[in-house]
Amino acid sequence: MAKDKKKQPRPKAETPKGFRDYFGADVTERKAMLDRIAEIYHRHGFDPLETSAVETVEALGKFLPDVDRPNAGVFAWQEEAVPGGGSGDWLALRYDLTAPLARVAAQFRNDLPTPYRRYAMGPVWRNEKPGPGRFRQFYQCDADTVGSASVAADAEICAMLADALEAVGIARGDYIVRINNRKVLNGVLEAAGVDGSATAEDVLRQIDKFDKVGRDGVLSLLTTGRKDDSGAFIDGVGLSEAQAAPVLAFLTSKGGDNAATLDNLHAAVGASGIGAEGVDELAQIAAMLKAMGIGEDRAVIDPSVVRGLGYYTGPVFEAELTFEILDDKGRKRQFGSVAGGGRYDGLVERFTGQKVPATGISIGVDRLLAALRAKGLAGADAMGPVVVTVMDRDRMADYQAMAADLRAAGIRAEVYLGNPKNFGNQLKYADKRSAPVAIIQGGDEAERGVVQVKDLVLGAKLATEASHDEWKAQPAQTEVSRADLVSEVRRILG
Amino acid sequence: MAKDKKKQPRPKAETPKGFRDYFGADVTERKAMLDRIAEIYHRHGFDPLETSAVETVEALGKFLPDVDRPNAGVFAWQEEAVPGGGSGDWLALRYDLTAPLARVAAQFRNDLPTPYRRYAMGPVWRNEKPGPGRFRQFYQCDADTVGSASVAADAEICAMLADALEAVGIARGDYIVRINNRKVLNGVLEAAGVDGSATAEDVLRQIDKFDKVGRDGVLSLLTTGRKDDSGAFIDGVGLSEAQAAPVLAFLTSKGGDNAATLDNLHAAVGASGIGAEGVDELAQIAAMLKAMGIGEDRAVIDPSVVRGLGYYTGPVFEAELTFEILDDKGRKRQFGSVAGGGRYDGLVERFTGQKVPATGISIGVDRLLAALRAKGLAGADAMGPVVVTVMDRDRMADYQAMAADLRAAGIRAEVYLGNPKNFGNQLKYADKRSAPVAIIQGGDEAERGVVQVKDLVLGAKLATEASHDEWKAQPAQTEVSRADLVSEVRRILG
Repeated sequence: MAKDKKKQPRPKAETPKGFRDYFGADVTERKAMLDRIAEIYHRHGFDPLETSAVETVEALGKFLPDVDRPNAGVFAWQEEAVPGGGSGDWLALRYDLTAPLARVAAQFRNDLPTPYRRYAMGPVWRNEKPGPGRFRQFYQCDADTVGSASVAADAEICAMLADALEAVGIARGDYIVRINNRKVLNGVLEAAGVDGSATAEDVLRQIDKFDKVGRDGVLSLLTTGRKDDSGAFIDGVGLSEAQAAPVLAFLTSKGGDNAATLDNLHAAVGASGIGAEGVDELAQIAAMLKAMGIGEDRAVIDPSVVRGLGYYTGPVFEAELTFEILDDKGRKRQFGSVAGGGRYDGLVERFTGQKVPATGISIGVDRLLAALRAKGLAGADAMGPVVVTVMDRDRMADYQAMAADLRAAGIRAEVYLGNPKNFGNQLKYADKRSAPVAIIQGGDEAERGVVQVKDLVLGAKLATEASHDEWKAQPAQTEVSRADLVSEVRRILG
Repeated sequence: MAKDKKKQPRPKAETPKGFRDYFGADVTERKAMLDRIAEIYHRHGFDPLETSAVETVEALGKFLPDVDRPNAGVFAWQEEAVPGGGSGDWLALRYDLTAPLARVAAQFRNDLPTPYRRYAMGPVWRNEKPGPGRFRQFYQCDADTVGSASVAADAEICAMLADALEAVGIARGDYIVRINNRKVLNGVLEAAGVDGSATAEDVLRQIDKFDKVGRDGVLSLLTTGRKDDSGAFIDGVGLSEAQAAPVLAFLTSKGGDNAATLDNLHAAVGASGIGAEGVDELAQIAAMLKAMGIGEDRAVIDPSVVRGLGYYTGPVFEAELTFEILDDKGRKRQFGSVAGGGRYDGLVERFTGQKVPATGISIGVDRLLAALRAKGLAGADAMGPVVVTVMDRDRMADYQAMAADLRAAGIRAEVYLGNPKNFGNQLKYADKRSAPVAIIQGGDEAERGVVQVKDLVLGAKLATEASHDEWKAQPAQTEVSRADLVSEVRRILG
């Protein structure tokens, strides 16, 4: 046996590639952020839904076409087929929160309220090549309304998103929810005389570059083509300048306020019926946002939003943080998008054959948390516990009574549980725990009924800043009677 | 295309067998419970850890011996081996929260504080045959201290468990944390002259039935054997009555208080060194619990705790709820165990070769939540939103403004977003949402600047209880000015 054991190499203590662990504040900061968002969603009448992490590949659907590799993009495995047991089904980890919502909306369509407002928060998994900052498990936070064709549902989602951003601490003026509409683009294409979905796809692909190449760049790409930064020539779509004009008018139609923008859009869609419908929807959304007290400084009609126009079928939303941060190379840049969404059809259609309209938003949890950290808004809970040190291992009960007294007063506290022999190690431990205070009681102090209370925050400050006399005065350590332990710690913690 | 589509059958909208979804209160009630537990753990100096759901099969370890079927008991799959990409590793979903803790403790041993106190809450997955109430994904909630050999760590875990149970609402007197020690049992076996681990295993297997068969049953099983309920004869272990005596003395040594129990245990272990060490550990734990203000009505030394004695190496804990509930058949029974744990070695040894002592507790999340529900302690958050109905679809903005006003006052509220044509459907919807109040404003009310506020809770009560005159008086519906909407709703909600 011993021989066999020796032969077997020790297992590697590593997460699989592309996976990570979250420690301490990583967990509590994200949780605090999601709790605040959930509170806003709940107040808007949205109910939580937590689906199982595992779905049948059949229900997830998206990946079915590639029958030879059903696990492309997802983590999938086949159940053993056991008589009376395993079904032989292919199972997979969910890759987003929308596919499970579709399955739930179909499975429970007779039990759920219609419309069904739900929010969901949790990990999703992607079987993709990991890279720096790109993980194969990450959090999503979605809110969707299923079963309402009314743009009132879209307006509500936008208002709720603005409220959620403020609830997590983003100040008014530091974010904007921008709203566009796929139907308006369809109208513009109709006005431009672009027909055939293939050409429409081409146009969509080019205007997707609007953020990068600007108005003139898109004009070139829609007509005769242009050279990109590397010098390579990108073929144009082949529209005439006259055809391209309404598309460019659409992209640049944002005016000084919603009313001006809507006027510009009316002009851009010309006589198109679908275009007029789209502009009217945006006008309704603008009116409803106003009625809900959401000013144009918080959510605004903005036809330059191009992300998602290819996927969504009606209104499209995007939330951007407008403050600047320093990037990896120390350059200022705008923080950018933290949430996106829109209206989509056919959510449930795969399952039931019925079209069910839906609209929703997804917040990029990691990006929003990074934004809060960049603004110093996420770190409230980082203080470590008060550490009660151990001078005399036979008096553990006394030290535990001290910690219990502190906890009973609502103060986070723990007894040092390592080998107490080396006192320096105990203070190093307190430092590693970011402890604000250490409690010390040796035999003579116990006899006199006192404890030493060491202010570690002040101590660290004095160590770097104090004069010799200040240092000698040792104001960072005070002796108090055992009965005054809690009040003295409370005084130091402020 | 259309023809192809017809051929493909629609996917089934179902969770995989053994998986389930959690809706609304299922999510919020569990979350509220876990939040309260986390608060207690945090106050005791424990830090949260959230490991990835996916581990390498190599790191999970337990299932490796069966090389032909590495996925027995776990959901596992092999990564594609792609040059520069997938490693060809076997990956698996974690089956508990302890195996990932072992991996983390080894992987980050140079960065983590020593000892490392951590708690973890989250789903785990088991590839087992599902059954009624037996799911393949469920929650666990663990707290462990890694790297401390001191029984102070065990005492702290027991105190924290008692605090956690009270924090979620279990009253003092309705639970008990019972503490035993594997070392005491080892001492008893030594005193009984039982040697050889095979015989010790046999004895363990029999005393595991103590809860079911009682003292005399165990005596038979340890000696000559007995008939079970079905009439089948179960062979005995073959001890003499004299050998069985110390084992039975151990199991029945609980006295009127800890001091009496410890005296009985001293007698049971006789001259055994390991036994004396075990009894001394229990005495220390008893003293520390007392110092922490945890009375014997909350946590007590109880050698009849046999669950886990085979697995743990030192102190063993179990939390039981002592109140009675009615089971499926209407019979009274004690609720029973909701948490268990103990001290174990070798957590990290597989990875590093070094023994690292650890101790911890795992709360059965579903069982504890079921207990809270049985006691009516979990359902605080079940109230639905105020529903603003839609009488005139052209005035959606007005209705949304009402909902926004209510939300601004902290009241959960939503506008009906379905087809407003049939008003009866709107009230049915409000009922399905458990709405406490419905708001109604038709054209004439809008002109007069008033709204109807319908108290749905009172309305439902009147419908079943009221006399005809009371019913005619319609006290469940009041007309107030639009400006008084919020205050009237607040009055009704109390």
